[in-house]
Amino acid sequence: MSDALVLDAAAQDLLFREARTANTFTDEPVTDEQIQAIYDLVKYAPTSMNQSPLRIVLVRSDDARARLVSHLADGNKDKTAKAPLVAILAADHEFHEELPRLFPHFPQAKDLFFGERPTREASSTLNATLQVAYFILGIRAAGLAAGPMTGFNAAGINKEFFQDGDHEVLAVVNIGKPGEDAWFPRSPRLDYDEVVTTV
Amino acid sequence: MSDALVLDAAAQDLLFREARTANTFTDEPVTDEQIQAIYDLVKYAPTSMNQSPLRIVLVRSDDARARLVSHLADGNKDKTAKAPLVAILAADHEFHEELPRLFPHFPQAKDLFFGERPTREASSTLNATLQVAYFILGIRAAGLAAGPMTGFNAAGINKEFFQDGDHEVLAVVNIGKPGEDAWFPRSPRLDYDEVVTTV
Repeated sequence: MSDALVLDAAAQDLLFREARTANTFTDEPVTDEQIQAIYDLVKYAPTSMNQSPLRIVLVRSDDARARLVSHLADGNKDKTAKAPLVAILAADHEFHEELPRLFPHFPQAKDLFFGERPTREASSTLNATLQVAYFILGIRAAGLAAGPMTGFNAAGINKEFFQDGDHEVLAVVNIGKPGEDAWFPRSPRLDYDEVVTTV
Repeated sequence: MSDALVLDAAAQDLLFREARTANTFTDEPVTDEQIQAIYDLVKYAPTSMNQSPLRIVLVRSDDARARLVSHLADGNKDKTAKAPLVAILAADHEFHEELPRLFPHFPQAKDLFFGERPTREASSTLNATLQVAYFILGIRAAGLAAGPMTGFNAAGINKEFFQDGDHEVLAVVNIGKPGEDAWFPRSPRLDYDEVVTTV
């Protein structure tokens, strides 16, 4: 571990080094208070012009859980059916309606940058994806394990859970305390020199 | 601050609550050792099938800095010209070539999921964007400030720095110790009930 980091070792382990993607969970419930604490931490992480396009649907009813599971890839169905809590993470392509409030020192941003739907969708997708990553780390900050998934029928989930046509699912995340045999062995990562170049 | 979080308060402040997007920096250099420490922390955060498509270009020469700045939005030029270090963060759309090594327990993933370029590009963009967020938080974990930007001519940067046609710039990030008047006042965030719904 390098001295170049200021973040303490316990936090490094909790968020990155020891944390793992969980595929099984205990029965311990995940409360709304925990999700609120996670949100109230990660909401501060940056997005372009503070546009904050992430929207979160907590799937708590049996009926909604069954409807969600029906749109998942086969390999994701069983673990999602059994997880203590499942969240749908989506981009709101109409985020610009809130922008005058979220970015008050530049009120023209709503129309100047985001008046056109294709520009708005691209920015919404990019920035909500950043917020998906912040949320995953926030789950870990609450002492919970995240099981993020991208294997699903996105059009099916969008139609099932967002009837307005303005939301795009980016990830589905199982949340809970890790259960038995919760993860695979850690897979290799790319070396620094394979990822970073200097010009 | 909620008791529902396990992450210690100092780490919460360092990564989220006190950290801010910096627009000015001191002259203190950012070393390769610091970037390596950041990478060796955030490389563990999850991507779909561990595909790890983020690639990082550290812009250290005056010539490369000038070429990069020429493609930035006017409001981003001056601060980027003066930052101690600037990194270009890009998605590698040919990440699947490394997949048999990165995801060894499912060697078919390379062709089964990512054989088609459009599927591969979408997955690369999504997952590299997650890694941009992890990298921003990693910069903060090193006690540095990040100044991430999306205001640039992406096609120009792609052509200037990635001649292979296989890389897509997602963000440009200034990195350093914050200088005088480094940031605007904190803008408002959306309330929990505006972002999170339950079904």
